[in-house]
Amino acid sequence: MQNFVFQNSVKILFGKGQIAAIVAEIPASAKVLITCGGGSAEKNGTMDQVRAALKNHTFEIFRGIEPNPTYETLMKGVEVVRTQKIDFLLAVGGGSVIDGTKFIAAAAPFDGEPWDIVTKGLALTSAVSIGTVLTLPATGSEMNGGAVISRKSTQDKLAFRSPLVLPLFSVLDPTVTYSLPPRQISNGICDAFVHVMEQYLVSPSESALQDRFAESILQTLIEDGPKTLANPTDYEARASLMWCATMALNQLIGQGVGQDWSSHRIGHELTVLYGLDHGQTLAVVLPCVMQARREAKHAKLVQYAHRVWGLTEVNEEVLIDQAIDRTRAFFVSLGFPSKLEGYGVTCDIDKVVAQLDRHGLSALGERGEVTPSVVRQILAAA
Amino acid sequence: MQNFVFQNSVKILFGKGQIAAIVAEIPASAKVLITCGGGSAEKNGTMDQVRAALKNHTFEIFRGIEPNPTYETLMKGVEVVRTQKIDFLLAVGGGSVIDGTKFIAAAAPFDGEPWDIVTKGLALTSAVSIGTVLTLPATGSEMNGGAVISRKSTQDKLAFRSPLVLPLFSVLDPTVTYSLPPRQISNGICDAFVHVMEQYLVSPSESALQDRFAESILQTLIEDGPKTLANPTDYEARASLMWCATMALNQLIGQGVGQDWSSHRIGHELTVLYGLDHGQTLAVVLPCVMQARREAKHAKLVQYAHRVWGLTEVNEEVLIDQAIDRTRAFFVSLGFPSKLEGYGVTCDIDKVVAQLDRHGLSALGERGEVTPSVVRQILAAA
Repeated sequence: MQNFVFQNSVKILFGKGQIAAIVAEIPASAKVLITCGGGSAEKNGTMDQVRAALKNHTFEIFRGIEPNPTYETLMKGVEVVRTQKIDFLLAVGGGSVIDGTKFIAAAAPFDGEPWDIVTKGLALTSAVSIGTVLTLPATGSEMNGGAVISRKSTQDKLAFRSPLVLPLFSVLDPTVTYSLPPRQISNGICDAFVHVMEQYLVSPSESALQDRFAESILQTLIEDGPKTLANPTDYEARASLMWCATMALNQLIGQGVGQDWSSHRIGHELTVLYGLDHGQTLAVVLPCVMQARREAKHAKLVQYAHRVWGLTEVNEEVLIDQAIDRTRAFFVSLGFPSKLEGYGVTCDIDKVVAQLDRHGLSALGERGEVTPSVVRQILAAA
Repeated sequence: MQNFVFQNSVKILFGKGQIAAIVAEIPASAKVLITCGGGSAEKNGTMDQVRAALKNHTFEIFRGIEPNPTYETLMKGVEVVRTQKIDFLLAVGGGSVIDGTKFIAAAAPFDGEPWDIVTKGLALTSAVSIGTVLTLPATGSEMNGGAVISRKSTQDKLAFRSPLVLPLFSVLDPTVTYSLPPRQISNGICDAFVHVMEQYLVSPSESALQDRFAESILQTLIEDGPKTLANPTDYEARASLMWCATMALNQLIGQGVGQDWSSHRIGHELTVLYGLDHGQTLAVVLPCVMQARREAKHAKLVQYAHRVWGLTEVNEEVLIDQAIDRTRAFFVSLGFPSKLEGYGVTCDIDKVVAQLDRHGLSALGERGEVTPSVVRQILAAA
């Protein structure tokens, strides 16, 4: 096990009716800005619950944070925080709203061009306090200090990270997700699954317990993912997905082990260039990464095949083929075409490689072995 | 899944050499009291590392916190904190030292008789800040807000809990545990195993993910426990045990599910009455609790047999017999006799039942079904 420092102070309020509890989590004197997306939280009654909980607080609402939240939109939120002297941000939405809110929180008190926070990885010295009401189980943003922000004008989709943008609390009420369309649930299952894989499919036995925790999340997603798609109001299955998605990226399973974020990095460029959903890019790219990297990750792929899929084939190459097939088939069962052409996309490989190069991401993977030529191989297969 | 609120802000500094990092975790201006036990941390060099890390801090040392730390000893520590105006407690030791330090932290600023904190479960309004350097993987106290304190004069061994005694940080360096005697490692493995079982062996499927996390810890203890006993300086195996013991009782796996602390409650009384190690009592009592409660816990025992032990017997009663046998055999393999007579103890069942009654613990288990008559049955088997 590699040395690590782990701390995650986010207070999780889990379960039906927990939105009401936020009244005790936000200082009574705070001037709150509620941030949200396109209106689904308004339509399904979540915003009514939030307003009821904050009836004795002073708040305003900033609407319109889009999927893959953009610098352009978020800077309008920064302006509101600055002019209205907001001192608490309450994100009501999915990963995009929460990520966008983290950028607003970091940018508002930032002295300089806020885009530098993303491109130059500048350390923050302050940020506005954040709480979240999660409406879409997927990204884990509700329990981590990371965010992915896009900039339209430059075709960038980049991550930043700071403990200062860790939410103080997050409400996870499975019932507020009942009205989500199946495509968003599928995206969420896929996103959580691939988050785990990026932290799991590295060298074997770096941490026996983290390996088993990762396998636990994968197995639970495989069991409960289809259940919650088939029956959106099955509370237990939806609660299970919600908790899996949070645990998939709250730092826990990544402690003490190497990490390989190749699928995400390549996926981000595909989203920027072709407008695909984040989950769609991952469903296509991950199995191709597994195939391209099967030699380097042989031992872990064998463990994955045995423990996650219960496969028993003795020939290990055939076993790995089966494990990759099962992974792809799982994504297909969630409604994802397995190739880019299934989305009507003809991929310009040179362009993707050039984007990665421009973003300083020419050597991906836990040991930098996913070079441009490996990326080409992955994209050719995709 | 039941509703839950989860927050655990302890900063974990994991790995070889991490003791040096505490210098940045304790305010430079703090007046520190280092608390420790009988001298093993002094002998194996851990205290030298601590002193080196704090060479620019002001500190004193309070020695002699015993296994099953007593009110009588701890009140001397309280006196030191009060008279020396200590504002930071650094516990260097195992669960007993850390638990004892939590009591000192709570009692020092407490206005009234501090024993009431334990017996009356009074809510704390303040506590001295705590950090820990863990030297014995077992209790999980390094990452939770609970403590178990004994009082010699009244033959009590009771728990208290407060978020205010949650350590700010805990150092987990596997190498400082290399010199521990095998009996203490066995106790630690057993304690962690039973901590998981008390949170796992309840109703099935209350939380699919928590179930799998619990099974992950059990499986890892079964795999790496014997390894670390056989080869104490195998870093990976010792690191694995250390992380398992912490994760076994840091609240995570118990969220959203019922809990049954029967084995611990009964074990505490056996320790008080007969001076057995905590781990020894658990190794004897848990299999007897499983047997006595096999009807109520049938479904979960079947799941445990399949997933943790990989058993495939079709007849479920035979399967459960096998699972209980495997559990008992695991403890025997760690060096624990399976019956109280193996420790030279003849148990006075009436006395144990009377102690539980006196402590208000006459209805144990997740639904209060472990009544005095069930306790008698358990103890007769033990």
